[in-house]
Amino acid sequence: MKLYTRQRAPNPRRVLMFIAEKGIAGIEMVEVDLSRGEHRAPGFVGLNPMAQVPLLELDDGRQLAESRAICTYLEGLQPQPNLMGEGFEERAFIEMMDRRCELQLTLRIANAVRHTHPGLAALEQPQFADFGASQGEKMREPARWLDGVLASQPYVAGARFTIADITAFCALEFARGLMKFQPGREGMEHLQAWRDRIAERPSAQAM
Amino acid sequence: MKLYTRQRAPNPRRVLMFIAEKGIAGIEMVEVDLSRGEHRAPGFVGLNPMAQVPLLELDDGRQLAESRAICTYLEGLQPQPNLMGEGFEERAFIEMMDRRCELQLTLRIANAVRHTHPGLAALEQPQFADFGASQGEKMREPARWLDGVLASQPYVAGARFTIADITAFCALEFARGLMKFQPGREGMEHLQAWRDRIAERPSAQAM
Repeated sequence: MKLYTRQRAPNPRRVLMFIAEKGIAGIEMVEVDLSRGEHRAPGFVGLNPMAQVPLLELDDGRQLAESRAICTYLEGLQPQPNLMGEGFEERAFIEMMDRRCELQLTLRIANAVRHTHPGLAALEQPQFADFGASQGEKMREPARWLDGVLASQPYVAGARFTIADITAFCALEFARGLMKFQPGREGMEHLQAWRDRIAERPSAQAM
Repeated sequence: MKLYTRQRAPNPRRVLMFIAEKGIAGIEMVEVDLSRGEHRAPGFVGLNPMAQVPLLELDDGRQLAESRAICTYLEGLQPQPNLMGEGFEERAFIEMMDRRCELQLTLRIANAVRHTHPGLAALEQPQFADFGASQGEKMREPARWLDGVLASQPYVAGARFTIADITAFCALEFARGLMKFQPGREGMEHLQAWRDRIAERPSAQAM
């Protein structure tokens, strides 16, 4: 298998961290330089019409895009350690928390960064700076919610580490890097403590 | 089971259409009046901190939110007809198409409507009209992509009807109602023909 990826980008990082947690070896990594527009070159758009990384090329030549769909495939290929749920009931509840993190937190952070960061003007055309600033404020709401969740349980989806921790961690690390967001400085101590624990996992170095 | 829902809202409609395709009976429906802010009342926020419908209350009293996670649960409860994939490989490819429709199409349409429609000013504070207008233009890109997909296969994810058709259909029906978007009038004939075929399914009346 071949993974088209981009160093330090938040969505590729989700899949790389998932692969590291699984201990899956032998996937060939192909770097796509977004700053040079390589994701929009005809060759890559032929592989993924959405012009996005990550993209997994299977051994039979088919292309699988979308971070979470790639994780679904890898979870099936190598079920242990389980990161997405055993059985449909646990899978549904982990998916709920994963989606809440992605749709509430990741998307707002991405909007905030893409619409305000000068270096991303080429990726987001046109930028709407007021909207971006508002999204930067609004990402605090789900962050505070997550802080409350982590006050009563050790991981985002409950008692054990799952894909929802990966989604939330990669979102918050993106915000830490590009928005200087540090939950502990804004009174979200549980979220900060959880972030610091996750950052100690070897998989947190995969990016 | 009890489904907290809202007539004609696009995300509840996805779950109602999924339930209708499955032929699942006996779920109690509880209407939440978004225009009166019932979703933000303490009682409902206690059930779903995201203040969103749909929300499924299980018989054991637990609450499951997020449209797609609810579908994952119902698919497990009643596997036939299969709408989300048999086995992890098909599940991953259907999830890819479902996510492309949701993240590229549904979200842009939702942004366009929420940031420009006067009737939704109470739901989206503040509204950014320029951003909304831009999203209304940008939803044409994934619509054209989907038109191309449907030129060579009968359904969004391939040879058979799946959850990805439900996601795309509910997004486009929302755009038809509130943005007057009609793919056929913009040269997307395959998308229009597919929409018209899906609209004939009995499940399309569930909303």
